[in-house]
Parts: sequence; C-alpha cells; structure tokens
Amino acid sequence: MSEYTVVFQPHMIKIKVPEGTTLIRAAMEAGVHVNASCGGEGVCGKCRVLIEKGQVEGGPSGRLSEQDQAEGFRLACQSIVKDDLVVRIPVESTVDARVLNMKRPPRQTAQIRQFNMEELKEQGLFFPPIEKRYLELPVPTIEDNVADVTRLVNYLKAIHDEHRLVVDLSVIRKAPDVMRSDDFRVTATLARPVRQGRKTRIINIHAGDTSAKNYAIAMDIGTTTIYGQLIDLISGDVLGEYGDFNAQISYGEDVITRIVFAEKADGLKKLHEIVAGTMNRVIHEIIKQAGVDQDDISAVTLAGNTTMTQLFLRVNPRYIRRGPYVPASILYPPLRAAELGLDLPDHVDALIYPIISSYVGGDIVAGVMGSGMYRTEKMTLFIDIGTNAEIVIGNEDWMACAACSAGPAFEGGGVKFGMRAARGAIEDFLMDPVTLEPMILTIGNVRPKGICGSGLINMVALMFEMGVINNRGKFDRDCNTSRIRENDGVYEYVLAMAHETQIDRDITLTENDIENLILAKGAIFSGCQTLLEEVGLAISDIEQVILAGGFGSYVDLSKAMTIGLLPEMYPEKIVYVGNGSLMGCKMSSLSNHIRMDVADVIKRMTNFELSETPSYMNHYMAALFLPHTDMKLFPMLASRLEARENPCRRDSSR
Amino acid sequence: MSEYTVVFQPHMIKIKVPEGTTLIRAAMEAGVHVNASCGGEGVCGKCRVLIEKGQVEGGPSGRLSEQDQAEGFRLACQSIVKDDLVVRIPVESTVDARVLNMKRPPRQTAQIRQFNMEELKEQGLFFPPIEKRYLELPVPTIEDNVADVTRLVNYLKAIHDEHRLVVDLSVIRKAPDVMRSDDFRVTATLARPVRQGRKTRIINIHAGDTSAKNYAIAMDIGTTTIYGQLIDLISGDVLGEYGDFNAQISYGEDVITRIVFAEKADGLKKLHEIVAGTMNRVIHEIIKQAGVDQDDISAVTLAGNTTMTQLFLRVNPRYIRRGPYVPASILYPPLRAAELGLDLPDHVDALIYPIISSYVGGDIVAGVMGSGMYRTEKMTLFIDIGTNAEIVIGNEDWMACAACSAGPAFEGGGVKFGMRAARGAIEDFLMDPVTLEPMILTIGNVRPKGICGSGLINMVALMFEMGVINNRGKFDRDCNTSRIRENDGVYEYVLAMAHETQIDRDITLTENDIENLILAKGAIFSGCQTLLEEVGLAISDIEQVILAGGFGSYVDLSKAMTIGLLPEMYPEKIVYVGNGSLMGCKMSSLSNHIRMDVADVIKRMTNFELSETPSYMNHYMAALFLPHTDMKLFPMLASRLEARENPCRRDSSR
Repeated sequence: MSEYTVVFQPHMIKIKVPEGTTLIRAAMEAGVHVNASCGGEGVCGKCRVLIEKGQVEGGPSGRLSEQDQAEGFRLACQSIVKDDLVVRIPVESTVDARVLNMKRPPRQTAQIRQFNMEELKEQGLFFPPIEKRYLELPVPTIEDNVADVTRLVNYLKAIHDEHRLVVDLSVIRKAPDVMRSDDFRVTATLARPVRQGRKTRIINIHAGDTSAKNYAIAMDIGTTTIYGQLIDLISGDVLGEYGDFNAQISYGEDVITRIVFAEKADGLKKLHEIVAGTMNRVIHEIIKQAGVDQDDISAVTLAGNTTMTQLFLRVNPRYIRRGPYVPASILYPPLRAAELGLDLPDHVDALIYPIISSYVGGDIVAGVMGSGMYRTEKMTLFIDIGTNAEIVIGNEDWMACAACSAGPAFEGGGVKFGMRAARGAIEDFLMDPVTLEPMILTIGNVRPKGICGSGLINMVALMFEMGVINNRGKFDRDCNTSRIRENDGVYEYVLAMAHETQIDRDITLTENDIENLILAKGAIFSGCQTLLEEVGLAISDIEQVILAGGFGSYVDLSKAMTIGLLPEMYPEKIVYVGNGSLMGCKMSSLSNHIRMDVADVIKRMTNFELSETPSYMNHYMAALFLPHTDMKLFPMLASRLEARENPCRRDSSR
Repeated sequence: MSEYTVVFQPHMIKIKVPEGTTLIRAAMEAGVHVNASCGGEGVCGKCRVLIEKGQVEGGPSGRLSEQDQAEGFRLACQSIVKDDLVVRIPVESTVDARVLNMKRPPRQTAQIRQFNMEELKEQGLFFPPIEKRYLELPVPTIEDNVADVTRLVNYLKAIHDEHRLVVDLSVIRKAPDVMRSDDFRVTATLARPVRQGRKTRIINIHAGDTSAKNYAIAMDIGTTTIYGQLIDLISGDVLGEYGDFNAQISYGEDVITRIVFAEKADGLKKLHEIVAGTMNRVIHEIIKQAGVDQDDISAVTLAGNTTMTQLFLRVNPRYIRRGPYVPASILYPPLRAAELGLDLPDHVDALIYPIISSYVGGDIVAGVMGSGMYRTEKMTLFIDIGTNAEIVIGNEDWMACAACSAGPAFEGGGVKFGMRAARGAIEDFLMDPVTLEPMILTIGNVRPKGICGSGLINMVALMFEMGVINNRGKFDRDCNTSRIRENDGVYEYVLAMAHETQIDRDITLTENDIENLILAKGAIFSGCQTLLEEVGLAISDIEQVILAGGFGSYVDLSKAMTIGLLPEMYPEKIVYVGNGSLMGCKMSSLSNHIRMDVADVIKRMTNFELSETPSYMNHYMAALFLPHTDMKLFPMLASRLEARENPCRRDSSR
C-alpha cells in the first residue's frame, strides 16, 4: 500500500500515513488537534479543514457551506488521503503558538508481532503434531496375510521411517474397508505424542492420497469472547477465523458469578453446554470459511483462564473463588474433542493448555509459549490485560507470575460511560490546549456511545500531561471551560454533548472513572514491582515488554507510561501479540516442540499470590498516583512535566 | 476330605476314592464294569451290587426286592461311599476270568493346573496392574495452595514413592469434592502402564481408606459361552464366577454364520450389542455374587477368538472369512470398558488380548500367557479344543501356531446324539467284555439325553481297544450282540433304550459319528505333526502337553491317546488348564508383568496356515485311522492291542 505525506499547517507538522487514512486520523496520529465531537461520523461539522495542496477523496458535506466547499474546505473525518497533502487547520480560537507547539510525543503503538512461518522454520520449530503419510501397499495374499493394521504399520516404517506407532480403535475399525476401497492406496494421519517417550498414534486413515489436506483448530476460550482459527498445517496459513461472544455471559459477566452459578444443581453441566455451544458455532463458521472437509481436521488446541478451562471440562470450579484459591489441576491429559461436546469427528484430539494457579490460567501459559517468552534470554515482562490482568516476569530460565485484581476498567467496567472496544467507543482523544475543546475519534467513525479502555488511557494521560488533571486524578478546579463541571457532587469533563451522541446523553469522563483507572493501573504496576522484588530484580532490569489481550493494539504506549500503567522504556522494546491465548494455541498446532515444552515451562513458572506478599500493599498504595509517587521511575515524563504549561493556569502563572 | 478304599469282588480290584463318591463312579474309575443304562439316576435298577463290608449312605431303592435289600444289595448309583468297603459285583453273565482281568489302564485325567497365588508371588509375577494407595494429605492453606491434583501427585511421590503419574480427567473432576469430603484423606487408584515407558495413570479417587477394596474382572468371550470372574486383587481370590450362553447363538452357531450376519446392514452393531448384553449379565451376576461396590472395580481383561474380538469391538470381521483371511488388527489399544458398551463405571480400563491371525485368536494367546507356556524351557504342545481347535508348539524362545478345522465333534456337533457337556450327557462308558452290555454314566447322574465329546472319545477308544470297532472306525460285523445293529444302512451301537432315556428314543453311537470323530482328531494330530515338521521337530520332542478348552477335564488321557487325538506320552506330562482364555485374563489381572509381556510374546508366535502347508494333507490322510496308520507313533497301544482278545471273535480265535 502506498504512503503519502500530509503536512498540517500552520505549524508544519508532517506525518506519513498509508493510503486510505482519513485526514482526521492523520491529524490525531500527528498530535494535531482538530475540534471533533461526533467521533468521525461527519455530523458535527466541526473538523473543517482547508486542503491547500493535493487531492482528497470525499470530504464535501452538507455540513459545509457551498462557499467553503468551493474554497477547498473539507470535513477532515470524511476526507481520505490519496495524495501528498498540505492541510491547514483553521485557527478559530486565540492560539498561543507556544502552547500549540508544546512538545508532545507522537502516538506510539506497540509493534505487532506477526506470525511468521519462515521464522518458525528457521528456529526449527515447525513440526506439526499432526502429519499425514501416503502409502501404496501391496495387496494381501495367502502367503502375506498379516493383519491390515500390521501391513499399514510395517509400510509406514519401511517407506516413511515411522517407528513406535500405535493405532486407535477407530482406525482399526475403518482400516479393512478403507484399505480395500482404493486398492490399498491409503493416507494415514499420525498424531505425535505430547509427552516424551510416548508413541506416535495413527488416528485416521483415508483412501487415496489426502496428504495435502491437513488441518487443525486453535481456540481461545475467553470469559467474554471465544476466538477460533482454522489452520493449514502444511502452509501455516489461517484459512478461517471467527470470534463470538461466549454465551455464558447471560449467566454472569465475570468468572466469579459463573462459579456461583456452577454451584447450583446442573449449573456446571449447563455452563459447559453453553460454552460448548458457542465453541461449536465458532468451529462451524471457521470450517465454512475454510471450506475444508472436517474429517481432515485432526486436532484442536484450547486455552482459557482457569475458570473457563474448568467450566468447559466440567470440572467444578467451586474452590477457585474461595480461599485458599485451589484449582483442580494444573495439567489435563490429552482428550478427544468429541467427548468434550465439540462437533468434531471422533478422531480429533483436544489438547488443553495447562494452567498455573486459580488466577493465572492456560491463556497466559499459551501467551508465554506462543510469544516465545519461554525461549528468550531477555528479561521479559509479559502483561495480559483482559477482564483481569496477569503478569509474568522472567525468561528461558525461570518465570514468576501473578494475577492482579485490576478490575475491568480497561474493558470499560466501573467507568460511567465505559464500554468494550466496539463500534462507537471513543478510542482516541486530543484536546485543544487553549479552548480545552475535545477531538474525539470512535471505533467505526460513528457518533460516540461511550469510552473504551484505550480511549480512557489516552484521555487521562493527555489531560494529566496538560495539567488538566492532577497526580491524584482530580480536575483542576481553575480551568476556564464549561466542559469541566460538577455533576451530583462529582467533577467531570464533557466529551460529547447529548445531541452529538448515539445515546442522547452527555458523554463525560468523571473523577470516579479516573480513580478506577488509577486503581487498575496501580494494581498492575505494583504487581510488577512486587514480583520483581520477590525475585530480586527492579523495573530497570526489564529488557522487553510483551503486551497481550484485546486492548493492547490500540493503546498509545507513551500514554500508558504517562499514567504509570507501563514502566517507562523505549517503545521499540514493547511488542504486542494480540490474543496471546489464541496465538499460543496456533503455535502449538504448528509445533509439537512447543506442545512438548509446555510441561517443563509450567514447572519453571512460580506463582505468587500478591495478596499474600507483604510488600504488595506498600507498592500498591505508592502506585495510586499519576504516574506514581516515585517520579524517579518515570524520568522522561518528569522532564516533560517540568517543561509543560498548564493551560488552566496560563494566565495566573505568567 | 477323607478318602476310603473300595475293593470290588470277585476280582479284588482296589481303588481309593474321596468321601461322597457314588459306588458306580468308583467302579467306573476302577475300570470295573457294572451294567447301567440310566446314567446313574437309579431307575434302570441294573447296577445291583452287594455290600460285603462297610456301610454306604443311600442305596436301597424300589428297584430292589425287600429280600435283596435285607441281604445287603444296593444300587451302586445310589450308594455313597462313607467308609472302607468291600463290594461284590454279581456275576450274571458267563464270565471268562481272563477277559475280566484283561489289563486296562485305569482312567487317567490330566492333572489340573490350579491357580496358585504363592507360586505367582514366588515367581515375582504378582504385581496387579491396579493398585490403591491411601494418603492423609495436608489441608491447603494460602501458603500452600497448589492444585488439588498436584497435591495428590506430590504426596503419592513423597509417601508411596510413586513416580511418573498422569491423572485422568474423571479423577480431576472428582478430586476437589472427594478430597474435601473426608478432610483430605483419600485413596487413589493407580493403573500401571501396559506399554513400556508409559506412565502410571491415576484412574479413580475415593474419600477415606478404600485400599483393601481392589477388584478386577476377567472375561472369556467364547463363541458359545461367556465366562466371567471377579477377582480380588489383594488376595488373588475369585469372589464371583459365572458363565452364560453367548446370546449371539441365535444369529448362528459358529463364527462364519455370524460374520455373514455382521455383513448385513446394522448386523455388526446388532451382534456387538447382543454380546455386550450377555457380557453385562455375566458382569452383574459376578458383582452380585462378590457383593462388591462396582466403583472399586478398576479393570476388565477380555479375550476371545478373532471373530468374537472383532464383533465385540465393532470391527467388521468380513475379511476373516474370505481368503486370504486377513484380520483387522493384531493389537488393540487400551480402551475404556464403558465406551465398549459394558455396564461398568467410566474409570474402568478394558484390556483386549491381542490375536495372532484370523483363526488363532486372543483366547489362545491368553492360554499361552496364563498357562506359563511362554516362560518355560520345555518344548510344549498347547491344544485348545473348543468349537474349533488351535495348536501352539514351542517354549520361551519361539512358538508356532495353527488353527485346525477340526469341526465341532468334540462339542457334540456332527454326532447323531451329540450334545454339549451338560446335564444328561453320557460322559463315561464301560462295556461288559462278555455280554457287550454298556455301563454309562451321565453328567448329573440323570437319564441320558445324548453324548458329549469326552463320552464319545471314551466309547470309541474302549470299543476300539476291545476290538468292537476296527481301525477304520467300523463295528465288527461278527459281534454277537443285539446292541450292534444296522439302521437305515448305518451300523450303530445302542447305548440306551428309548425307555431308559430322557428323549424317548434309542440313544446310539453310529459309524458316522465315529467317522466324524476320526476326522476331527485326525485334523488336530496332523496339525501338530505338520507344525512340528515345519520347525524341524518330531512328536517325540514334545516334553509337555497343555490342554485347554471346555472338554479337557473329562477326557481320559489314555483314551485320547488310544484314538490318536493326543500323542502317546506319560500322563504326568499332560496338564489341563481348563478355560485357558479365562485363566489368561485372570493372570493378566494379577500380573502386570504378564500384561506387558504379551506384546513381545505375540512377536515370537509364527502363524501357519495349514491349508497352505503342502505336507499337511499327507499327514491328515495318514491320521484318519484309529489311532494312526503309523503305529510306531503309538508303541504302548500297539503292545496292548497285540495282547488283547476280541470278545466278538473269542470263539473263532480259539
């Protein structure tokens, strides 16, 4: 895809963006404020800009006068970059150039770690646990009338050098007829052992040569969402991918309410059936997308948090929610997909990612495996932020992990207008440094419905850095703007007026929301500090950060550092792996080495119960500030804050 | 039990018998003829004997006059030995003392090899594949909140030195509640691996100490009958035992007709369900007999011939009956009893004995394992005679095996009045050497219904040795008795008159019956010869014979040698193991060494298709005589025959 350069005037701020970006996104990326409160839908008409050079696609709008249009004005949210551009932002407020040019780092998201088949092969990791072998067998005679399965095994040994084979009953059942249906030309499906010392199993047999059709499924059983991928085990390609809400949501948003439901009569059975139902919908959809024969699918790898794992496997999760928080099991034996209620053929193996503790589950282990954290020398901090937050610190030699009761603020929980990262969620935010007017962009560029986690972080970080919010998360009472107001005794900032929204109510950011965000980020940051301290390290020892979880891709890293969620470090050292759980399942589908390593890796992972670690509470209390009481941990931010001018206090401070 | 001495007059023949034996059995054992044709029911009144010394229990009868009774006459079949006795046989025919004193070997049955727990322990073989371990676990705390299953595994390691454990999903499901129901006192059920290098599985968990309750089931899936035993894995005792007819019989008496039925739509499913139904009846009965909780049963070991194995496992047996006679598989993986349709708890493992070929099945392998043949240095001939006959020759180093199409004569098939060894079957026979009157005893001492296999052998051997039958199986036409007659062109001997039977027809032994017996024994003997020849040995190299199968316990060994079914050898070298299949299953239940050895043993067993072995037909033709064309193979018999006097030709020969 082509890239174009956009220069924003009057301040000559230059940015390169890919073709197809809207002008308002380009401005947001560049840190150039343009008033906007409809999220990018084109209805507020505030984001009026002048195209001085180059052509944009779209942009004229009923919200602009004919004269404006003729002069070259466009709505930034409706204009698509298809050319190098010079764009002028009309200065409608009294602009103080010094403020406008206030140094703000450009938006920095983490580099996304993409799956790379070549890399997998180079590292010697490409070794699918399922392989197919084609054979042309001699036809039996009275002189050579060994059992059908013996013939198959003998020739797998002779032709394909396959040793130590055992044969599933289902294959024994099929073999006699399948072998005779294409004159003893057959393809055997081999499943490699997960455990050292075990034998390779023959799990399926087809007439003729089907060796090019070899598939597996990876699946993340999330509390909220279930994602599946259908993977081609020969190319490594994802042929189908689908996510759906976990239908268990009707029985409780979080794991605790589901555990409570599971304690009722038939509750566990019910929750199992419901999650299996969602999983089956996902499975059907990815099989449909991929257009493969389900008899050529031979394995499914699953990961979920401890409660989701136990609910899916019908293992009573009762003791997970009660002290001393004991899970039923760490490891699960290899199982059959069909016996777990999945609509897959009988021969399909199901591998369940092991868990670490009641609150560090298989999704985290999968993330550690799939991200390669367990194979790196670098001291790594792995953070998976979802409904809860889990932290792993360590490298190839050892790992320490813990769950943080961060609460659901990052998923919009406990936030007055919080919502998941869905269409209509405010995800990006700038503020006019003079007028304090907002520039908001929503997911889907529609009128706003609420605020998602990354939007919340962006807002709080920006306002804090501008001085609109102090380090305890309180709005500066002196700001000269009607957008900051007191409502029922709580201070709030109005992001969008009722008529600009989809919900016909003013959408605001309240001090309570900010407090919840601080509690959440404080829990995570202090969790990291405590874990590090327990293993005799400090924040500065961290060489890389791996972010996992739904929200990581949208988070502006510098803003996450500004609020003290992430330790301050060079953004290049931060990678985002997306859904770590799904990625781990995919990697296991393509690499039996990874599958076999899991049992050892979990032995190297030490779980810490933060609530039982005496220093945790001190670290936690110290982290309940923006960014932290100990500013020495955030030197870059400290120097920026020293240089800043507080727009609310500009007059008085001069 | 006490033994008493019985002396039969007038010829001073002495025998020791256990207390409780009837006088007529004692006479039969001693080779003393007493006329008898009602099988021992006491209705023909012919077996009138005089008690000269000592007391018997019972014996007076309406069939005796008051004077007879007063003089001390009793019916031998109704008199029970409870004392040392002198008994006089009334000489009612003109007796030639030379004939009466004709040397006849006493009846010799094979020594029965009984299961001996001490022996098993001495040989280091007692090592049940299922063991239970009791544990008193520490209660979890927040400092020690490892997963329940981890706690279990860790303490099994620490307290019981149990390593390399894996845990079944069903145990993970039960563990949390079971562990807490008796304050973390639990008993774990461990299943040892069948395959080298595998791990021990934890397959069940109970609250409290149930380690003394540890049971397994052994089961023989016969074409005709299904036998089960419930075994105490601590004492080795059989706590329940039951046999029932395989309900598949309604779909065909033999394996071929069942294979044909299995080829019909749903035929295989139907036959599986039917045999599983019979097996479940047997299982319920032995559990009831033993009075154990079925949750304390942890394994079932099964053996059957190849067709029965495939039908039970729902593996299409179609290719077993068609050349080149290919079975589906030799080995079957360890399975779950419940998934095979058995009414046993989910945790119960099912181990299926491997087979060798289409006609040498798991029942034979079980016999070879259970009898210890695979561990002896002695060159051994193992013969299992059932619906078919299978032979194994060899020792600990190698084995050769073959199936003989003997036909069902030994089970009463192809015999005019043939029947299975059931109540009313004539099983023992003597003939008055002068009058040629019969002395018959039936199973259950009731009026005769027919002739069973051992009875047939006894009759033919005796008549042949007396000269009443010649070496081609034909009656001497010169015999002066109305009991030998021609009926519809076929010569026959009348064993019992219609009014003496349960079936109101004369029960006879026909020349066709004798011919079928000769065909059957000829097939087995020539099978042995052919196998021996193929491995470079001769009959004389055989050091011991192991007989298995339903009929072996009743067979008079000397008579089996007389007709040429068994090679001539000292009876001490012949052991009878009864149902070898059931015994093998029992031994596997008590010894994981035996279970683990099976896979190696079957590799050492070479199968021969007799029909494809050129020398077989010559051997077969030579064996279609009594005992054989080559009398050098039967030197002892040859010398007896030279000394004999033919009662039919006594007059003419003088």
